[in-house]
Amino acid sequence: MKASQFFISTLKEAPADAEVVSHKLMMRAGMIKRLGAGIYNYMPMGLRVIRKVERIIREEMERAGAVELLMPVVQPAELWQETGRFDKMGPELMRVKDRHDRDFIIQPTSEEVVTDIARQELRSYKQLPKNFYHIQTKFRDERRPRFGVMRGREFTMKDAYSFDRDPAGAAKSYEAMFAAYKRIFDRFGLTYRAVAADTGAIGGDLSHEFQVIAKTGEDAIIYCPTSDYAANIELAEALAPATPRAEPTQPLAKTLTPGKSTCADVAEFLGLPLTRSLKSLVLATDTLDDQGHPVGSTVWLLLLRGDHEMNEVKVGKVPGLKEGFRFATLAEIDEHFGCKPGYLGPLGLKKPVKIIADRTVAAMSDFCCGANEADYHLTGVNWGRDLPEPDLVADLRNVVEGDPSPDGKGVLAIERGIEVGHVFYLGTKYSKAMNATFLDETGKPALMEMGCYGIGVTRILGAAIEQNHDARGIIWPASIAPFQAVVCPIGMDRSDAVKEAAVRLYEELSAAGVDVLLDDRGERPGAMFADWELVGVPVRVVVSDRGLKEGLLEVQGRRDAEASKVALAEVGAFVKARLQA
Amino acid sequence: MKASQFFISTLKEAPADAEVVSHKLMMRAGMIKRLGAGIYNYMPMGLRVIRKVERIIREEMERAGAVELLMPVVQPAELWQETGRFDKMGPELMRVKDRHDRDFIIQPTSEEVVTDIARQELRSYKQLPKNFYHIQTKFRDERRPRFGVMRGREFTMKDAYSFDRDPAGAAKSYEAMFAAYKRIFDRFGLTYRAVAADTGAIGGDLSHEFQVIAKTGEDAIIYCPTSDYAANIELAEALAPATPRAEPTQPLAKTLTPGKSTCADVAEFLGLPLTRSLKSLVLATDTLDDQGHPVGSTVWLLLLRGDHEMNEVKVGKVPGLKEGFRFATLAEIDEHFGCKPGYLGPLGLKKPVKIIADRTVAAMSDFCCGANEADYHLTGVNWGRDLPEPDLVADLRNVVEGDPSPDGKGVLAIERGIEVGHVFYLGTKYSKAMNATFLDETGKPALMEMGCYGIGVTRILGAAIEQNHDARGIIWPASIAPFQAVVCPIGMDRSDAVKEAAVRLYEELSAAGVDVLLDDRGERPGAMFADWELVGVPVRVVVSDRGLKEGLLEVQGRRDAEASKVALAEVGAFVKARLQA
Repeated sequence: MKASQFFISTLKEAPADAEVVSHKLMMRAGMIKRLGAGIYNYMPMGLRVIRKVERIIREEMERAGAVELLMPVVQPAELWQETGRFDKMGPELMRVKDRHDRDFIIQPTSEEVVTDIARQELRSYKQLPKNFYHIQTKFRDERRPRFGVMRGREFTMKDAYSFDRDPAGAAKSYEAMFAAYKRIFDRFGLTYRAVAADTGAIGGDLSHEFQVIAKTGEDAIIYCPTSDYAANIELAEALAPATPRAEPTQPLAKTLTPGKSTCADVAEFLGLPLTRSLKSLVLATDTLDDQGHPVGSTVWLLLLRGDHEMNEVKVGKVPGLKEGFRFATLAEIDEHFGCKPGYLGPLGLKKPVKIIADRTVAAMSDFCCGANEADYHLTGVNWGRDLPEPDLVADLRNVVEGDPSPDGKGVLAIERGIEVGHVFYLGTKYSKAMNATFLDETGKPALMEMGCYGIGVTRILGAAIEQNHDARGIIWPASIAPFQAVVCPIGMDRSDAVKEAAVRLYEELSAAGVDVLLDDRGERPGAMFADWELVGVPVRVVVSDRGLKEGLLEVQGRRDAEASKVALAEVGAFVKARLQA
Repeated sequence: MKASQFFISTLKEAPADAEVVSHKLMMRAGMIKRLGAGIYNYMPMGLRVIRKVERIIREEMERAGAVELLMPVVQPAELWQETGRFDKMGPELMRVKDRHDRDFIIQPTSEEVVTDIARQELRSYKQLPKNFYHIQTKFRDERRPRFGVMRGREFTMKDAYSFDRDPAGAAKSYEAMFAAYKRIFDRFGLTYRAVAADTGAIGGDLSHEFQVIAKTGEDAIIYCPTSDYAANIELAEALAPATPRAEPTQPLAKTLTPGKSTCADVAEFLGLPLTRSLKSLVLATDTLDDQGHPVGSTVWLLLLRGDHEMNEVKVGKVPGLKEGFRFATLAEIDEHFGCKPGYLGPLGLKKPVKIIADRTVAAMSDFCCGANEADYHLTGVNWGRDLPEPDLVADLRNVVEGDPSPDGKGVLAIERGIEVGHVFYLGTKYSKAMNATFLDETGKPALMEMGCYGIGVTRILGAAIEQNHDARGIIWPASIAPFQAVVCPIGMDRSDAVKEAAVRLYEELSAAGVDVLLDDRGERPGAMFADWELVGVPVRVVVSDRGLKEGLLEVQGRRDAEASKVALAEVGAFVKARLQA
């Protein structure tokens, strides 16, 4: 491609509303252009990256046996009503009516449509397994679209859906997709982790997020540096302490702690380590009648160590809380504890509650907690001696750095990531709701076992930049760079030798399969170099009169501190080698 | 591709709602699957054709210097309000509100968005000309979606937009696109015509439709078999008769024509040729006040020869009717003619009207027309003698077969076509409405001159099939066929020799760049052949034990009456040659 036939538009400053570095750099490099909140034009420079991302995805999906089709953006509401998602999904689901006042949605994903295709097309076990995917425009009406393409409203997603005869088959399909995703992300040239994730109501362990590692990532990734263990924070298990609960050494005492209502304040005031204090959280569950109206409620006391944080997903798996829980009201708290929040604890309740202790809490002794009396805390509290053992002990908290790895092979570390892919075993959730059956080997109808597999195509761009940039701009991996190399002639309009050499080199590199751009805009060297460092082209070759005289051209990788001088005849091979490195 | 890794789903019968042959065959061949009225899933077999169509378009657009970007499907209403199209467009424009109750539309085209990009990005004459295009999902909420992908609601379109400094530049951009379109349609392998079309209010002659010729086409295409002339029926000019008006030979007479209110009935009743009768059409134009309310009206009598049809576009260009006209009301007709329709004519008016005669009418003599009295007609009517010459003579009618070609090089013929592309000079329509200016060489702001250029990507599939099919199914041109060739092994499961030879041939053809499918499904020969004839793969190679024993394989082109026997070693070259033919 020649610059004169392309469209290049760089900015010195990013617009004020660009918050994160990838958003700023994509705007400055002319890759995207804002059309509305969370809605972007993909400009020619950005679209080239998208196309390369899509091509890698297609090649690997096909290699894994998936078949591409194309499902519509605008989908009839009827299918979404079959699964209940038309009502259950909130305002994120963009709803629209046609001229006949019929309901439609703009697709956020395509489970309903693909399951509708499957129940019509896949009628025999002989047709299974099957994996359909498409790469198509999606829309989610985010409450607060931000970070450019990282949380946009309109975006491009690759979503694949597998259909199998049974859970064993579905697990095989899942593994094939997992392997394909590893190949895809390897080929993107990004540092990533496949992180075990929660499967929600379905259970099992077939859910992984593909996280691109970046300091600016929204997600906490838990991993063990000395083993393969990696999970997201929702799932990562906090083991019970290895050492058993110590014997009591202190007497139970009530202490005045005026105005100290947080664990940190109390511990500091009492001169105790935070690890000796207890955090009390009061939850409630409702009993519903046949019509779904609440007819009664149960109050639960959740106990965590003062420095730990509640993990909602884990709490949601506790027996009795699975069907849904909420934080208790002030009235409920007063009814059971006779006290306002800030001074709550498990001793001296006004009315009994269910007490659930985190595994760490169950192993604590001589601890401090609220006295259920305003401005008072108890110290030297001990299970068994001062109060009965908890009703239930469970993993309720987020792991923290230094926790033992669940696989027993070291201690956990935490890093930040950006979720760009997700593989997920769906079981029969959709096939059941939509009656997607096939005839099994005995001729009986059976529900299809499904999996779904997404990659946020446009989000890849943002994630790649969050991971790979410097003060001068983007640093693209060679496989998804808008151009792999750029030929920068200096004084092309003055020197025929430069012009000829630049065009010859451009043609040579093109012929060698390098996706190269010839910058024939006639910009000054400084502006030209700044543009290509901003855009993040992996390799730059400078063609100048001086270089030609010496027979040596300057070749510089985007991460190189300085240029290498390369003999004219060697430049092609040198560039190719640099791109493969 | 191996069939076992692909998805093939053919039907013996088309669904009842498929009206036209392309719709039926696409459904039967498993290319599309209906999701809702005018909304289709593109199944793997259909998507392959779309991808090939898109690739050809991209290559030729790039060759013509156009730059690809991607504009969103969901677009803010504000831009559409700037041009007035948000209000002016009817229910075809799909409107949608987001969670904040802001208005958006689902794009039917992208003039507004691309002009918004241009007014921000193209600030200097040095940046012009520029041509941006995208290939993206479109939605038009058609009142009556039908004919499968030919008039769907959701469809894929390539739309390009050129920006130039001045009309001369815009004409050059137009010509470049016209040439690119010819290359594109040539490469599709379709029989088509580039047909001059009306430019509406803009004027000039820079509008062409690309019509795929097919008996089932909705559009009438006018062309001259002995010259290059081709136009759509809206535009094709009907010349004035070459021979001057003949002298009167008959006296004016009033004749009873009871109940004969159409030209055909009257002519038959009176024993006159239809070409001697006059058709009277009464139109009205309204005078509006400053607020746009009608404050008065003018009535016009349009005269056509009895066998001719009014051309609304031509009538809309007549001075006085340009600003909009309507058919007159019965009250207005009675007021001016004192008679009900069916017996109207230009003689004996109750109140004067403007009389506009078609060119042919102005050259008629001794003609017959309504007497402005129920059940009576006049015969032997002659201009000048019986009534004054018409107020205006103009081309008001559709041409008919046999009319002289406007270029004077023969007579006109008519065929049917399907519009699949349109190139159009827009002038400053959008740049003016949206104030899209650039700084010209003198540093002054000037409006950009625009052109727009569309190709209905998904409609190409339907048009190609309407043109190319037989009783057995589709006949794809090689360049856009889902597969160029299919290898059909007979008894693959019984014969290792067949299996090995088929796989070897498949690999050989693949390596030679042929997009080949190996049908390894194990279907019986009859079913297998029927499938590929239905799908329309251009070349079929049969691998059988008998063929291998003879060393001769059967190769058959989709249009061939019978197979050719080709020596095993020659099959690859033979297939390639057939595909290029």
